[in-house]
Amino acid sequence: MTRAPENPTESTIFLLHEVRAQAPLVQCLTNAVVTNITANALLALGAAPAMVDIPGEAGPFARVASGVLINLGTPAADQRDAMREAAAAATASGTPWVLDPVAIGALPVRTSLAAELKAQRPSLVRGNASEIIAFDGAGAGGRGVDATDGVEDAVASARRVAREVGGIVAVSGPVDVVTDGAREVRLGNGDALLTRITGGGCALGAVMAAFAGVTRDRFAATVAAITVYNLAAELAAERAAGPGTFAPLFLDELSRIDADTVRARAVIA
Amino acid sequence: MTRAPENPTESTIFLLHEVRAQAPLVQCLTNAVVTNITANALLALGAAPAMVDIPGEAGPFARVASGVLINLGTPAADQRDAMREAAAAATASGTPWVLDPVAIGALPVRTSLAAELKAQRPSLVRGNASEIIAFDGAGAGGRGVDATDGVEDAVASARRVAREVGGIVAVSGPVDVVTDGAREVRLGNGDALLTRITGGGCALGAVMAAFAGVTRDRFAATVAAITVYNLAAELAAERAAGPGTFAPLFLDELSRIDADTVRARAVIA
Amino acid sequence: MTRAPENPTESTIFLLHEVRAQAPLVQCLTNAVVTNITANALLALGAAPAMVDIPGEAGPFARVASGVLINLGTPAADQRDAMREAAAAATASGTPWVLDPVAIGALPVRTSLAAELKAQRPSLVRGNASEIIAFDGAGAGGRGVDATDGVEDAVASARRVAREVGGIVAVSGPVDVVTDGAREVRLGNGDALLTRITGGGCALGAVMAAFAGVTRDRFAATVAAITVYNLAAELAAERAAGPGTFAPLFLDELSRIDADTVRARAVIA
Repeated sequence: MTRAPENPTESTIFLLHEVRAQAPLVQCLTNAVVTNITANALLALGAAPAMVDIPGEAGPFARVASGVLINLGTPAADQRDAMREAAAAATASGTPWVLDPVAIGALPVRTSLAAELKAQRPSLVRGNASEIIAFDGAGAGGRGVDATDGVEDAVASARRVAREVGGIVAVSGPVDVVTDGAREVRLGNGDALLTRITGGGCALGAVMAAFAGVTRDRFAATVAAITVYNLAAELAAERAAGPGTFAPLFLDELSRIDADTVRARAVIA
Repeated sequence: MTRAPENPTESTIFLLHEVRAQAPLVQCLTNAVVTNITANALLALGAAPAMVDIPGEAGPFARVASGVLINLGTPAADQRDAMREAAAAATASGTPWVLDPVAIGALPVRTSLAAELKAQRPSLVRGNASEIIAFDGAGAGGRGVDATDGVEDAVASARRVAREVGGIVAVSGPVDVVTDGAREVRLGNGDALLTRITGGGCALGAVMAAFAGVTRDRFAATVAAITVYNLAAELAAERAAGPGTFAPLFLDELSRIDADTVRARAVIA
Repeated sequence: MTRAPENPTESTIFLLHEVRAQAPLVQCLTNAVVTNITANALLALGAAPAMVDIPGEAGPFARVASGVLINLGTPAADQRDAMREAAAAATASGTPWVLDPVAIGALPVRTSLAAELKAQRPSLVRGNASEIIAFDGAGAGGRGVDATDGVEDAVASARRVAREVGGIVAVSGPVDVVTDGAREVRLGNGDALLTRITGGGCALGAVMAAFAGVTRDRFAATVAAITVYNLAAELAAERAAGPGTFAPLFLDELSRIDADTVRARAVIA
């Protein structure tokens, strides 16, 4: 674990280097639709994915993983048990873990599970505006996985959740907002094509877990993860002819994005 | 809901525009192999996928979805319960739903589930010739997911099934046949590369659910879905070097296929 | 079933032709992350994938399949039952089956399942060095799915396992080792990009099952599967800009690799 520089662009560059040098082991308990792109995004970045999501293995693995992602996209019964096990073990052992409360609000099973997991105090929470508002207990949820609220509408909820869990909350949207309950930054990179491929948001949760695995500064880790991820998307979008060709180009860019590119293009305010 | 034009090519163009304008919410209960390409095909087309397939959530969601796909490719026990729940809720609430009876006939669990679901009267049924014959109760099924019967051999079965369930049946093959039990059309677009990628057939079921979500004319919806899907495959095949590069190009083409292309190339007889 | 030529390069060419001619039906019980690329690799090669992995269907299907893959990457409870069923049926009916003991050693559920399946005598075993050492009962397992031992460190274990199960063992690494317990060959093709995409190892297990489905000579089948697979990776890597574009190019190469390429480039010693 290393302390990142104060300047957010420089700390992003520093942490990107750390991820590649340390190859953090990221345990993913995620939905059935996005396992592939999630693992591939981690591999492209230089991290080591491990999809250990069955009861009896999820807890022990969370104790040794560098970071854990729990994504509620398709929470089958066994996986829900594994998620409880992983969250408890991660919290007990100090492993940082990311909760992505996909499509909570209207859907009963995952909404109740999200409330349970909130009590376990996730280190990082990632969602679109509707999900973060629902996670705060203040909204009625979105339309499936699409946000029906704007990012700025979710900032008050994000702050409350951050203070309640003692962690970092990231709200995804055209501009991303990251808060620890006291301060916010706004991240301006990215491309709309990320919303035209499945897993465009979900894989980011895993990348956040990777960055949180190499530093104790979870705010800096979140800013770095989102900035690197969204910059790779911008670069890929410049060469893609549509969402199909965007996905492989995005993975290529994740594998080769460098300090110069981050320094030249990061929009962090 | 809007009524489509009488001419099948013009109604295809009209419904493609409606899908992009309305972004129908398509609930997919599908097999573990094809979730990714299924969601990506819907996103590329402009629809909104939601893979809500657990008991307790599948039924409530089917009431609000624009369309539902039930694909029997890897029917684990919990998903079977979710399928029953979704089919009942869709039928009760008037949500159109597509049944894809993958590899029924020889495989006992899914064959018995398919018979149950048939009694729920799916709005649309999609399969290869062997699957449609097996679904009609007249055959011994295929070799896994490959058709061992020709499309024309399945037309009588398709008609009977359409009349029995009061819906539309589509038989996939080099030429696709669509019937409502009284009339047939034959659709001549497509490319063999669709059979060289996994999900080439399965994702079409989801696209049919998307089109059925924007019109009450389910025959026109089925014709439009298959025509748009197969045209995108044709266009992608012209530029692909093999099945690997075909898949991303196919998604690109789904995202940009336009009225002129449909008008110039659709083969509907 | 045909007997392959003695020369390993010529037998590889012969068996590649047989796979394309016979289109072996390969049943895959594999992990949730890699189903897609596994099925696509089989399709690209000319084989027929079938992901039949639920109890009640897995056993009957294993009796008629040409080959079976059992991969322990995400062994949920129902899938574990299906794996037991498939292994028993395959052994009873003489269907060749491949076991890939992913990440065994440290993870308790799969380690105990691997021991059970070992007693069923898999025809072929594939793993990285740490997995093969753990499968031999001699090691403490790897770091998730990454090998922490070198290939040569695993050769003694591989030999013992091969003799114990009466089958073939392949150890994956920069150089792959194949043994039947008495002799070894070393296979020098491949590219590091295979380790930067998820499923790069797992899909090979399915390809081994495809080759084992067209010949009784399982040693030759394993050598051929690995050589063809790794050559396709080499060819794709020459044109890829990173792991994202590598994956589709790899599938293209699998679909078109020919005798001349194998003859010119195979490294078998």
